[in-house]
Amino acid sequence: MKMDHEAAGLAQVIAGDTAISTVGKEGKGLTYRGYAIEDLAQEASFEEVAYLLIEGKLPTKSDLKKYQDTLKADQAVPDPILKILNELPKLADPMDVLRSACSVLGVIEPENKSHNTNNANNAKQIASRLIPFSASALLYWYLSNFAKVKQIETGENSIAGHFLHLLHDKAPTEEARRALDVSLILYAEHEFNASTFAARVCTSTGSDFYSAIVAAIATLRGPLHGGANEAAMKLIESFKSPDEAEAGILERLQRHDLIMGFGHRVYKDHDPRSNIIKAWANKLAREPKQVVMLSIAERIEKVMWQEKHLFPNLDFYSALVYHFLNIPTFLFTPIFVISRISGWSAHIVEQRENNKLIRPLANYIGPDLLPYLPIEERKG
Amino acid sequence: MKMDHEAAGLAQVIAGDTAISTVGKEGKGLTYRGYAIEDLAQEASFEEVAYLLIEGKLPTKSDLKKYQDTLKADQAVPDPILKILNELPKLADPMDVLRSACSVLGVIEPENKSHNTNNANNAKQIASRLIPFSASALLYWYLSNFAKVKQIETGENSIAGHFLHLLHDKAPTEEARRALDVSLILYAEHEFNASTFAARVCTSTGSDFYSAIVAAIATLRGPLHGGANEAAMKLIESFKSPDEAEAGILERLQRHDLIMGFGHRVYKDHDPRSNIIKAWANKLAREPKQVVMLSIAERIEKVMWQEKHLFPNLDFYSALVYHFLNIPTFLFTPIFVISRISGWSAHIVEQRENNKLIRPLANYIGPDLLPYLPIEERKG
Repeated sequence: MKMDHEAAGLAQVIAGDTAISTVGKEGKGLTYRGYAIEDLAQEASFEEVAYLLIEGKLPTKSDLKKYQDTLKADQAVPDPILKILNELPKLADPMDVLRSACSVLGVIEPENKSHNTNNANNAKQIASRLIPFSASALLYWYLSNFAKVKQIETGENSIAGHFLHLLHDKAPTEEARRALDVSLILYAEHEFNASTFAARVCTSTGSDFYSAIVAAIATLRGPLHGGANEAAMKLIESFKSPDEAEAGILERLQRHDLIMGFGHRVYKDHDPRSNIIKAWANKLAREPKQVVMLSIAERIEKVMWQEKHLFPNLDFYSALVYHFLNIPTFLFTPIFVISRISGWSAHIVEQRENNKLIRPLANYIGPDLLPYLPIEERKG
Repeated sequence: MKMDHEAAGLAQVIAGDTAISTVGKEGKGLTYRGYAIEDLAQEASFEEVAYLLIEGKLPTKSDLKKYQDTLKADQAVPDPILKILNELPKLADPMDVLRSACSVLGVIEPENKSHNTNNANNAKQIASRLIPFSASALLYWYLSNFAKVKQIETGENSIAGHFLHLLHDKAPTEEARRALDVSLILYAEHEFNASTFAARVCTSTGSDFYSAIVAAIATLRGPLHGGANEAAMKLIESFKSPDEAEAGILERLQRHDLIMGFGHRVYKDHDPRSNIIKAWANKLAREPKQVVMLSIAERIEKVMWQEKHLFPNLDFYSALVYHFLNIPTFLFTPIFVISRISGWSAHIVEQRENNKLIRPLANYIGPDLLPYLPIEERKG
């Protein structure tokens, strides 16, 4: 007998313990290691948040300085990977490139071999390595499509600064740095979402750190997960005015199209991250074209609430923030990866601390035992 | 409050429907699409089994011929991937190499772009592409460590033949072909094991075919899953006689060491695949050294049953079969991958047919809401 479709997808199933974040008791609020997302987005930097997630506590000034220095040193991309990136086609999907680059880094700098420390430190070293590396490798590949890339290491002290500096080949404004920084904080961690869960399933077999990150990138790639911010941008851009957007959305809803960037499996009435990033979209919208885009987005938000009682999730206004920062749409999901590596890493470390193989059962709906037919007797 | 550790790992949780295989009602037996594993291992070829898993029915003679021709054509490795494989270190983990090669193939021959057919066919084309490709790419990398590889395409009609021919640079005996063929049949599919489940979690976000396979390879890599056959070989090889093995196993059990290749999450009293592959180990053991190895393995089996009521699973005697076929130990887990791509592919297609995002919940055991402390006030 088939499973109830509502019961599928492990929708109400508790798959394990976590001390890393809570996606709201009673469906509200988000904390990382006990700190409210609102406080972190207001007061902290992404580097403090990544440290918090992976180490379990906020860094002191000297902890943070040391961590920033490590992240800065880790901006480098090894020569064999540069050669490999040169072999990849210009029109490839950046998520495929990122998945491959992180996989190959795991060949070249494998866990437990390249570092002379204990396992736990080694895992954390790889975690900090992968964050700036993924930004550098992705942008090296992307920028090489246009011109020879002279320098990958920007020497910037923050991941947001490094990404924007490398992408635009100049030091970003303080406002741009902070806008991207806040977005990275909001994307850093979200409990047992699909990509994090994939990383934990992978880790549960005793696999290595890179494998778990690669499995997570592979999983985040889907439009029902990380791909939503790009889909939201394409939706907003497809309209020329708020009225056109309203008509367009109503039409899509009538066709039962899925509107990306709205609703959430766990949150039921709002996503606490949405208002934070929406405030940044408001702040960055200055040119007339940007102001129109923002009003289109706000009209879509209004119609979605009126018609479906669906609220924007983090992906919806993040798309506008990235667009206003002059980031090409097809790099939106990779930015999600760069940030979420911090959360994934915390979950890999946590899964290892109290590991049990994650191996569910299936409900069999196939045929009963069949007699084997020799190939000559089979009919087409 | 912490979860009961016994309840963790989704051990008794049904995560979805499947019509592909059943890992025994009442913990016994194994069928693929309704056919008993014993019949398939006796009568069918791996190619028939892969076709059965992916297409849902046994092939006719002309179906099989067409499928074999496709697999043969798919033995090729594109030039950019050869160049990339040349960049990878000689001492790398072959599973890391395989994970990376399949990831890069997804960049170079992406889903929905390189083929002018509908989605379903495209997925199945990639499935057949990946099976011989993974054998070719892996062995190209491995053999290049010793000498320039002149020819990757062997023109062999079977995956087992292709693998052995490429590895040993000569046409294998019929007996060797069939021994590896049977092993590939036994490894092809096993319901919601961890790697298959990872592939389904990945697929559930709408991600592409290659991403799901890469996530599965990453997950299979762990010693609690695919890595067990290599660990079993190292265990058997570590003893010089059955008596030494008995003493060694008893000692390890006293230390509560995990003995790889024994027991199973789902099977409770035997693994139906074990006797089939054990018969092949018996058949292949001819040289005195091989006969001793076999008797060491049998003594380990006996002690494990007497002491722990644990039975050998597929991995234990598969290790001996591969060893007797002169396959280096560190290629054992990659062979598991080459075979299991067929089962993973069937699950990716099935997950897409009735998709729902796989996103469980977590049990939060972290701190309650904490006040945010400015960095100056934090203590180390």
